[in-house]
Formats: sequence, structure tokens, C-alpha cells
Amino acid sequence: MGIAERAWAERALFLDNYQLTMAQLYFRHGIHESTAQFEHFTRSCPNYGNHQAGYCIAAGLEWLLDWMDEASITDADIEALRSQRTATGEQLFDDDFLSWLRANGSFDSLSLRAVPEGRVVHPNAPLTIVQGPLAIAQLLETSLLNHLNFQTLIATKASRMVEAARGRPVLEFGLRRSPEHAASAATRAALIGGADFSSNTGISKVLGVPPKGTHAHSMVQVFMALGEGELGAFRSYAKQYPDDCLLLVDTIDTLRSGVPNAITVFDELRSAGHKPVGVRLDSGDLAYLAIQSALLLDAAGHGETSITLSSGLDELSIFQILAQIDQEAPRYGLSAGQLINRLSFGVGSKLTASDGHPYLDGVYKLVALENQGEWRPAIKLSESPAKSQTPGDKDLIRVYDDRGRATADLLTVAGEELPDDFITLQHPIEHGVRRRLPNERVSAVESLLRDVYGHGKRVGEQSSLTQIRERRDRDIEKLDPGVRRLVNPHTYHVSLSPDLWDLKQRLITEARGTG
Amino acid sequence: MGIAERAWAERALFLDNYQLTMAQLYFRHGIHESTAQFEHFTRSCPNYGNHQAGYCIAAGLEWLLDWMDEASITDADIEALRSQRTATGEQLFDDDFLSWLRANGSFDSLSLRAVPEGRVVHPNAPLTIVQGPLAIAQLLETSLLNHLNFQTLIATKASRMVEAARGRPVLEFGLRRSPEHAASAATRAALIGGADFSSNTGISKVLGVPPKGTHAHSMVQVFMALGEGELGAFRSYAKQYPDDCLLLVDTIDTLRSGVPNAITVFDELRSAGHKPVGVRLDSGDLAYLAIQSALLLDAAGHGETSITLSSGLDELSIFQILAQIDQEAPRYGLSAGQLINRLSFGVGSKLTASDGHPYLDGVYKLVALENQGEWRPAIKLSESPAKSQTPGDKDLIRVYDDRGRATADLLTVAGEELPDDFITLQHPIEHGVRRRLPNERVSAVESLLRDVYGHGKRVGEQSSLTQIRERRDRDIEKLDPGVRRLVNPHTYHVSLSPDLWDLKQRLITEARGTG
Repeated sequence: MGIAERAWAERALFLDNYQLTMAQLYFRHGIHESTAQFEHFTRSCPNYGNHQAGYCIAAGLEWLLDWMDEASITDADIEALRSQRTATGEQLFDDDFLSWLRANGSFDSLSLRAVPEGRVVHPNAPLTIVQGPLAIAQLLETSLLNHLNFQTLIATKASRMVEAARGRPVLEFGLRRSPEHAASAATRAALIGGADFSSNTGISKVLGVPPKGTHAHSMVQVFMALGEGELGAFRSYAKQYPDDCLLLVDTIDTLRSGVPNAITVFDELRSAGHKPVGVRLDSGDLAYLAIQSALLLDAAGHGETSITLSSGLDELSIFQILAQIDQEAPRYGLSAGQLINRLSFGVGSKLTASDGHPYLDGVYKLVALENQGEWRPAIKLSESPAKSQTPGDKDLIRVYDDRGRATADLLTVAGEELPDDFITLQHPIEHGVRRRLPNERVSAVESLLRDVYGHGKRVGEQSSLTQIRERRDRDIEKLDPGVRRLVNPHTYHVSLSPDLWDLKQRLITEARGTG
Repeated sequence: MGIAERAWAERALFLDNYQLTMAQLYFRHGIHESTAQFEHFTRSCPNYGNHQAGYCIAAGLEWLLDWMDEASITDADIEALRSQRTATGEQLFDDDFLSWLRANGSFDSLSLRAVPEGRVVHPNAPLTIVQGPLAIAQLLETSLLNHLNFQTLIATKASRMVEAARGRPVLEFGLRRSPEHAASAATRAALIGGADFSSNTGISKVLGVPPKGTHAHSMVQVFMALGEGELGAFRSYAKQYPDDCLLLVDTIDTLRSGVPNAITVFDELRSAGHKPVGVRLDSGDLAYLAIQSALLLDAAGHGETSITLSSGLDELSIFQILAQIDQEAPRYGLSAGQLINRLSFGVGSKLTASDGHPYLDGVYKLVALENQGEWRPAIKLSESPAKSQTPGDKDLIRVYDDRGRATADLLTVAGEELPDDFITLQHPIEHGVRRRLPNERVSAVESLLRDVYGHGKRVGEQSSLTQIRERRDRDIEKLDPGVRRLVNPHTYHVSLSPDLWDLKQRLITEARGTG
């Protein structure tokens, strides 16, 4: 196939074919340039089976905008579309539509508002709002979801691992088992979610974060095959990288061979005036081996060295390892806190493939359409009430309680003023389930959506990766611990204003009547 | 960031940084050009939690070779590496190494053998064997695994869905929730695994398979917002696509609105001489709604129309829906077989993200190294015996029993002759667990590995997607039904020859002694 053909396929035609057939239908009806508003939101946080996310971390917007910049319809795209056939063998896309598409097939005509990357976000609240010509906004659907669903998914998983790791470094090592070229996006999202470094050389350079790594078992095997054994391998590595000497100690036997050989080499490094980095444990009972390795290293006077743990780690296994160390370390005369303070975590596939829940159920729904100068809210009913969406142009407001903690996200009708005395938080589905928050119990309200794209250009200042990461840190601090809990988290409230609730009910009634 | 920077990051530096630090170490020791042999294999089939794969479908090789063609080290790569720093702030990669890498950093010096794409494969048997200069073969590790792990994972998942679907069409609709740009590879792998079509416009064109699709709920919402209702939407769609009219019927209410409106439109199409395609059900109890929709369509004389089911489908839900139809359809006077024969399945995220097990644990291990003209087998022991690999240069042979069914894959020492009277199948880990297969019970033996790459070029004929798909069909036919079972499948035997077993034991003993 060739890389160039694939690159082509991932530009403007990186979409579901029905977006194009629908665009042609709108064109035929003369409504393709009517202004439409679509909303992107998730239906739920990832549920990993025996544990669940209580929040998500928004990510992927910057790369979506990069993609939009490059994804204008080209002649080659038009030729590809011209070759599609109907069931009866005729051209599926008519020439007049293709001419219009060639002339108008870019995203310059759209404007986007979005919750900035790195922010804590919740289901059923808009993360992105797209406004523009109906056909063009429709064409954006697939790729917008593709880009934002994935990075938000991975940033969320990373954030959980980072929380489980109690502030110790988390290194993303996933590339070999990451979902193919989505690995690049996974690395970026992992960093947004709070991971500290990645092993991925190329994308780390692009993102301005130095790549990290140790060595593989194969390095030890090579020196073993040459008759120099594990010790010979470690010595060679230390000689080449005397100040970056992190040794993988489980190729033969962690405690009987790996750690003792590492100690020999660390002694030699120390004598030569270097500071050994530490060891990496990649198999076996990592909590037990961490304690035993620490005992051996301490006894040899290498109490300053680090211990990196890897091998199928996820947030629950990190949590469990640390809990086990809390309990067990004192029995060996070790301070659990000190041991934990020398740990790092290498996480791979379970982060970059979001093990347990490998996709985010973000959707992109029409919420309003302009017709003859008048906005009409749009609705989709559903077999499942939870899937009935909230119509119309909206604002998204975060409400902070008197402790400064985020207590609810509130959807309002766009431009709606909040009352002076109290805020009413209406449950989005259950009639009559509402909570009133008097103003004295509200420390702040904050509008979450920002203008990010318009007239073919980014709007506002672009954030650096560091700024995005800081945003996450700040938002996590303001979450209730119950919402941050790894297992069975408290459900964060996303509520409707009474005005928005009334609009939704009216639309549902009308739709059932006129369907 | 920009698309160009990302594309750069996904070429030669699409690897774990430690591959480069190890390569430099080998360079420093003058062994970087010693011939090494690495083996790629999986450790297990995906286990999706409550169901497990009994086999995998090899996929991804052709795209790996495409990548290798383009992934030579460039000046920009060298500059990026030159900017890396040690802990003490010095240049991590020395200039002499970088010069060598610039001159030799392509994969032209490697040769690859591999099991062809589309074939049924099993854990702990080599899928790819890489031979060439140690440093270069090491540099290939990450990207080889990245490309082959993912497509094999998705082709395997697709194959299970296709088996569950009893030969009815399976359409891949996953793009919006696929792992970002890995979506392209997911579509290809889904087709290799037996899916019939994809909704993905661009990559379908590249792969030479027409894209498929219907319309979204938003199309119905648009016409509702314009006051024309669902019927108006369906009419407009039918007018534009009279011979490709597949209608999504659950925007308002499947049985009370969607199907009746579809019937009205199908009647009109029929009167105008067109053949309506059918309906798509995307929410609710799909088995129940399929039966009820069929009853309504039949009663209206549209018994020939198809019914496409979608909404979170995986292999188990497809299996269950068909089992429910088997039981329930006759109670409504419908033939279950006839109903099933009009079904198609649209599968999305659960296919293209491999829900339940979103990564494949393929590994790439050094098995032999040439030193002073002599091959030395390499081994890695491990805390877990199952992780101890099988050393040395090998052949991989599939043994077919007297029913023509594949009964075991046998690893032998390369060039080893099979005995005339019987084949001995030694369990790879358990000493003394072996099975003898007399020759009269063996209908065929087949060597699975093929030369695929050498001297910077593909070797042998390239297979078309159709040929790869046919390969899968043939191999699936020859599998025992127990191995194909969706839940708790029978374990297919991957065995060692007695000679290979002896070599492995000898190496383990030596390694424990000299570690």
C-alpha cells in the first residue's frame, strides 16, 4: 500500500461514508449551508469492569485542530468519491455535489467552542460545540470523535494510575502494544493525564519531553550468549552510561543474580565517582521483590538508588502493591514511606490501550438547526431514556461549594442568567429530582467552554503541554475524594437548569406527537 | 504540532528509546554487526474476561514492511538524537555512533521469515523471525511489535464476530471510537479477520473494498427540526438513494414510528420500480425488535428487505441474539432461519478496540547470536516458567490429523528431519508430558514460515486482501470446533520436538549456572 496512500486516507476522507451521503442529501435539499449546531459529549465514564472512573480528563483537541487544518477536500478525494457506485451501478455522488464539495470542503466555515484540554470533565455535558454549515459540520463528526474519544480515554486512565502512584513518577512504556499509530496520541494523552515521561523517542521529541528507558532483557542475553553473563552485561552498560545506570535485574533470577550483580556494578560506579540510578523489576511479586531488593541495596549502602516496577501494571495493581508495601515493609524493618519514595512505575499496554474499557462512548449530536433565520432545537428520542439528548444551544457552568470543591456541572440555556438567591440543579432524566444550592454555599461558578476555532483559525492562546498538565492538577485538587476513588466512585452531578429541563420536555412531547 | 511533525515521529524514531541506547552499547563493544536472530511470538490468545480466543489470525505484516521501507534514519533523526542528554548533561549518543547510525540505519540488512497474513496462529510459536546485524534487529523490535500486535488482535476479534454471525455480513463501523489513527489498521485487520465491509471511506478506497453505510440519527433530526418529521426524512433519503435505501428506524420509536414510516417509503419505492434495501435497528432489544420488524415488513409485503443490527455488538451479543431468534421467532410464526438470513451486523468499538482485551502480548526475543562464526542460542529465564523462552533457530510445522484437522503446531530445531514412523509432541514446559502421533494418523505436515523480506526488498509474491481472507477461511475450516468455541475453547497444542526440548533444558541449566 505505501505510507503515502495511508496518509491520504487519514486526511479528509477519514470519515464514515454516510457523512458524505447525508451531505449530498442536504445539498440536494438546499439545506447544506443552513447553520447547524452539534454537540460532542460522552455518555459515561469508562467502566473497567471491577473499577470505574469517576471523572474524565479532556484531551485531544489540539491534535484535532491540527488535523482540521490539513483535511480539506482535494482533487484526489473527489476522484475517489466519483468512483463510488450505487447498487444499480450508477455514480453515487453527483457531479454538482462533488463540485460544491471540492469548493467548500474545508472546515474554515465552522466555529468550535470546547472545554480546554487537561480539565476534569463529566458525562452528558458538552465537551465541544460545533457550529456551521450543516453539511460541513456533519462531515466533521467521525474525525472529531475519533480524535477526542481516544485521547480523553487515555488521559483518564493515566490520571487514575498517577493517583494510585501517590505522586511517584509514572513512565509510559506502551508503544509496542499500543494501538498501532495511535501510540503517538496515547503518549500525549498519558502526559496530559499526569504521566511524567514516555519511552517513545520520536513523539517525546515533538512534545518536548525527554524520552526515558533502561535496557531490555535481550541486552543481558547478548552478553550471556557471548559468555560474559549478567554481570558482564551490567558492567558494560554501566561503563557506557555511568550516570544513567538503571539495570533490569530479572533476566535470570532477581534476588539471587540480578540485584547482587547490580550491587557489584553500583559499588564500582560509586568508586569511580558516579551515582548509580537503580534497578528495574519486571516480573514476579513486585511488592515482595521491591522490599527484598531494597533490603539488599540498603545493606550494600545503596539506599539512594531507585526501584522501578513494571509488568502489566494498572491503577489497581499499583494501588495494591503500595498497600502491600505499607503492610509488609515494617515487618522487615523497612520504612514503607521511604521505600515508596524510591519507587517509579513503568506502565505499558494497560495504559495506552485503556485495559478494561478500550473506547470512550463520545457522541456528536445535532442540537439545533437554523431555518429561515430562526433556531430550532433538535432532539433524538431513543429506546433508552438515558440516550435522549438535551436539545438547544447551551452553556456549561461548574459550581464550586463553600469548601472550594466542584459540586456540580450545570447545563443552562445559552445566555440564561443564574438567579441571585440560589442555584437549582435539576436531575437530567428524573422529573422532580432536584437540589437547591443557596448562594452562600456557592464559592464560585465558572463557565467551562472557550472559543477555540473560527474562520479557519485557532482562537485564543494555545496552551503548552505544561499548562495543560497544570490544569489537570488544579481540577483534580478540587474534586471530592469520593469522585476520585478508583473503585465505585461517587457520581458527580451534571444537572440541568429548570429552563433547560422545560425545553427538553417540550421537545420530547412534540417529537412523540409528530414523529 | 502539525501533521508533518507527527508523521516524522512515526518513522524511524517510532521506537522505545532503549533500543537506541542498547544499539550504542553494542556499537561500543564492536558487536553491533554480529548476526542476531530474534523471534516474535505471542504468549497467549486474548482473554476477554468471560470469553477467550482459542486461536489468533496473523495480520499486519504487509503494513510493517511498508513502514520498514520508509523508516530509514535521516539527518533530522540524528539531530533529534544528538539533542538527548545524560543525567550529567552530556550528549547521550556519541558522534561516532550517530555517524554509523546515519550510514546504516535502515532495515535493508535484515531478513524476515513470517507466517503469512490471514493464517490461524497460536501462542508460543514464532510468527516472525528476524535475522541481521544485532543493533539493527534490536531497533526493529518496538515497531514490529506495534504493527503486528495490533492487526493480529483486531483480526482475531473480527474472526470471532464473523463466526458468531453464522456467515451473515459483518460491517465494521468503528472509526469514531477506534483507537485514533490506528483505525486504518483496524479496518484492514477487520477485513482480514472476515468482516465484509467498512464504513471508513478513505482506507476502504486504499484497500479496494467499497465503503458501506446508512445514515445517522442526525439526518432524521434535521428533517424533524424542519417540520417534515421522520417520514419526510425517509422520503427524502429514498428519493436521493432509491436503490440503496437502508433506513435507520430508531430515532423516535422503532416499531410505532420507524418501521411503519419505512414501510410507507418502501411501498413508494416499489411502486416506482425500485428495490428497497432494508432497515437498521440501533437500540433496544435487538432480537425482539428484529422479530417484530420482520413481522411488520412481511405483513406489508417487504419480506425481501434486510435488517441490519447495530449498537454495542460483540461476538457474544451476536451469538445471543441469534440464539434468542432461534427460540423466539417460531412463537411468532416466523422461520428463525429465514429471519437470520436477512440479517447483517454493524460492529464498531467492540471490534476495533478489541473490547475485553485491547492489546496482544506479542514479544520479540533474542534466540541466537553469531559470534566468531558460530551460532549461540540465547535464553531468558524468568520468575514465571511460562515466560522462559525456547532458544535457537527453529522451524514451525503444522501437523494435520487423519480427519484433515490441524492437531498441533510443532517447533523443531531448524533443519531437523521428522522421524519416519511417528511424530513426538513434547509439552513446552512440563517435562515428560508428550504425545506420539503415528504416521498413519497424520494426513499432512506443513511448514508455516515463509521468506518475506531480504536485501531491502519483499521476497516472494505479495498477497491480495482477497487471498489473505481466503487463507483465513481455509485455516478456520481445518480447526477443531472445540478450538473455535467462543467461550472456554479447547487449548490447541503447540509442542516442541524432543531435540528442541533437550536444547532448551541444556540452556536453562547453563544459564542458572553462569548467571
